[in-house]
Amino acid sequence: MWQSSAAAGRLLLCSGRSWLQLRGYSSTVISGKTVEDGVLSSFRSICGEDGVSLGQAVREQHGKDESVHRCCPPDVVVFPRCVEEVSALARVCHSHRLPIIPFGTGTGLEGGVGAVKGGVCFSLRKMDAVLDLHPEDFDVTVEPGVTRKALNAYLRDTGLWFPVDPGADASLCGMAATSASGTNAVRYGTMRENVLNLEVVLADGSVLHTAGKGRRPRKTAAGYNLTNLLVGSEGTLGIITKTTLRLYGVPEATASAVCSFPSVQAAVDSTVQVLQAGVPIARIEFLDDVMIDACNRFSSLNYPVTPTLFLEFHGSERSLEEQVSTTEEITQSNGGADFQWARDAETRSRLWKARHDAWYASLALRPGCKAYATDVCVPLSRLPQIIVETKEDLIENRLTGPIAGHVGDGNFHCVMVVNPDDPDELHRVHLFTQRLASLTTLRCVFLSGKLHRSHLLVNPP
Amino acid sequence: MWQSSAAAGRLLLCSGRSWLQLRGYSSTVISGKTVEDGVLSSFRSICGEDGVSLGQAVREQHGKDESVHRCCPPDVVVFPRCVEEVSALARVCHSHRLPIIPFGTGTGLEGGVGAVKGGVCFSLRKMDAVLDLHPEDFDVTVEPGVTRKALNAYLRDTGLWFPVDPGADASLCGMAATSASGTNAVRYGTMRENVLNLEVVLADGSVLHTAGKGRRPRKTAAGYNLTNLLVGSEGTLGIITKTTLRLYGVPEATASAVCSFPSVQAAVDSTVQVLQAGVPIARIEFLDDVMIDACNRFSSLNYPVTPTLFLEFHGSERSLEEQVSTTEEITQSNGGADFQWARDAETRSRLWKARHDAWYASLALRPGCKAYATDVCVPLSRLPQIIVETKEDLIENRLTGPIAGHVGDGNFHCVMVVNPDDPDELHRVHLFTQRLASLTTLRCVFLSGKLHRSHLLVNPP
Repeated sequence: MWQSSAAAGRLLLCSGRSWLQLRGYSSTVISGKTVEDGVLSSFRSICGEDGVSLGQAVREQHGKDESVHRCCPPDVVVFPRCVEEVSALARVCHSHRLPIIPFGTGTGLEGGVGAVKGGVCFSLRKMDAVLDLHPEDFDVTVEPGVTRKALNAYLRDTGLWFPVDPGADASLCGMAATSASGTNAVRYGTMRENVLNLEVVLADGSVLHTAGKGRRPRKTAAGYNLTNLLVGSEGTLGIITKTTLRLYGVPEATASAVCSFPSVQAAVDSTVQVLQAGVPIARIEFLDDVMIDACNRFSSLNYPVTPTLFLEFHGSERSLEEQVSTTEEITQSNGGADFQWARDAETRSRLWKARHDAWYASLALRPGCKAYATDVCVPLSRLPQIIVETKEDLIENRLTGPIAGHVGDGNFHCVMVVNPDDPDELHRVHLFTQRLASLTTLRCVFLSGKLHRSHLLVNPP
Repeated sequence: MWQSSAAAGRLLLCSGRSWLQLRGYSSTVISGKTVEDGVLSSFRSICGEDGVSLGQAVREQHGKDESVHRCCPPDVVVFPRCVEEVSALARVCHSHRLPIIPFGTGTGLEGGVGAVKGGVCFSLRKMDAVLDLHPEDFDVTVEPGVTRKALNAYLRDTGLWFPVDPGADASLCGMAATSASGTNAVRYGTMRENVLNLEVVLADGSVLHTAGKGRRPRKTAAGYNLTNLLVGSEGTLGIITKTTLRLYGVPEATASAVCSFPSVQAAVDSTVQVLQAGVPIARIEFLDDVMIDACNRFSSLNYPVTPTLFLEFHGSERSLEEQVSTTEEITQSNGGADFQWARDAETRSRLWKARHDAWYASLALRPGCKAYATDVCVPLSRLPQIIVETKEDLIENRLTGPIAGHVGDGNFHCVMVVNPDDPDELHRVHLFTQRLASLTTLRCVFLSGKLHRSHLLVNPP
């Protein structure tokens, strides 16, 4: 859920050093400067009077995502309606060396949309068309304003769905820009595996189709893999204006379960064995005792407060039976409790809502505090030791950090709940994250947002 | 099988234009030129006397792969034993602006190893260690001399395997360099999905770990996705000296089948429906009537000479039953014949050997001729029409081009069997491939080797 998935991206660096700093200019001052005047009137002539905003509320709304990171408002927000407008706006910015910040839904948790050097925010919400659905080819093309929930609503009667699910209702192009992942990556992969083609506006306004215009091959080895260079580039290489996505058949049957374990090791061992047994598990999510306690309180549940797995199975009725019996056998042999079942859609959606609300549940542990995410991925075999050491570290340093993870991928989040007005606590959090990084050096990769996290800690909000 | 999968890559372009052309120098001439002398003795001091070869036979062996493309021998072949030697050799080449051509097994079918501007071939066969196997993490790291069959032999007792299978026993780093695919990509993906990390020596000799040194995360969103920029770069961005690969559990049970269809449309419709039904099919390969006829002759089989699917199912015994019954229902509803079963390992391996030998079966259709591959990927829904039009074109132009394809991915190969001594036929082939490209413009991507293919046609072997 607190994957770096929701924001459309970060700074797009135009070549050059001397930014035109519109920041702080009042509209009258702007109209007094002919160059800046030219810029704004160019913007207005491209996307209309109501397509350009200098209002403080609008700028502040676009300088912040859902994270703890402080608001860095852009100097101006533009609302292009099509790729041609994005391109024309980018050309103006390029010729005046203005930073561009693409903005999707602002649901990111890592401050990626902050205009740290001011500049022009491209809000892409007006471009919200589902363009080409090819059910027989299992693909669809969407504009940047389309969110994953909107797409799945659009697909409702087709028997198809798009599975990548970072929790928030992020825009799909933003999810491509940030290489979003989520609870069912273990079965369906991340954005990396599910983007077939991108239309991108580069810094100079030129338009690039990473796999060729209008192409949507299932695989390609022609030329460099520019699609995957753009996926995860966080807006630094271009503004994604279209993405073609791989779709999947809606599973015939779905079942979810919750299982409690005596230890972190037992939960992770079960995960490894389930994967080794070839069970095509759709979701296998770990929550530590602190996190399950937080979820119990926030979502009115009453699961045992021990290391817990949330599981989901997709398949035909028959295959589901087999997946479940294999998994149940494995969890029991590791001391796991009996599955608590969630077969009906309502109970299932309540269960996964609780998991997706883990961020807010964490925040609710300490009212008035702020939360920020860490995001670590290690080989599965290293996971129990690292989680145990991390929990010891948290206790020793009097920090609140409930843990949840996409355990099938070796990926976990420790949600730091901090009092932003307590410099000592902020300092302890800062040292903790440094230790987390060094503990996992040579073995882990911080998934994203490093820069912005340290930025936060150096410049507390 | 004739995927661009086997060769270690293409030209690595050192920055600069003035190559030192060793080509054609005899060893005495070389020893008469102090600069070149210095180069060769540097090479020898790095990888030993027997690690440098100027012999014509060795050079010719390294100037050609298994394709029709003419031999372009390098000026010298070096045999480094470790990454430090590769790096030191690359530094020498860089300072003298010599082209580098990485060489794996030479099993490519697109001429990627040809030293079109002379230069130094880096044969990586001495680096053949399996370095780090982590069964509990489903990953392994290998040096460039390790082939896919060698790896799977090494894994035999672990319950794990590496599924990407381009037919030839290519080196795994070569398969990474060329973004190899194969018959079971429909289930397990291509190299793109299965490479976790690469160690790469860049043109200046510096060593890059694309996902961080020693790291093998299942996923990452930290920084640019350099791993996938290198996968498929065909040796143009660096020399791959190590690759960390994702492994899979050996399926509990496997079954193969052959099914004949009244038309191309019926075979492809069945494929779409099988995928839509969510059958996790491991292989679904299309062979047209000409190809099945060629395979019958070459491999002593007697399948009906009509459009045919070769299928393979992986899973537990119970899941297999279900996969098979769903698939059989679908094929029958499309007019497919009863499955011909291959349940025992011997019959199965005979079946897939026949499929993998399709290249040689095609060649055997016209003794004395040469074959070269085309490699087209289109959205599945476009496949029947394009195959039908392609077959009409072949007949009209009196060309031999049996067709086989990884139909689950919309990817097919038309193997052009040509008489290299017939300029008129070569010309007709040239025009045919141009039409194939234009027919599929906006809808398809030539998977690879375009440059080398047109190069062939302009300069017949």
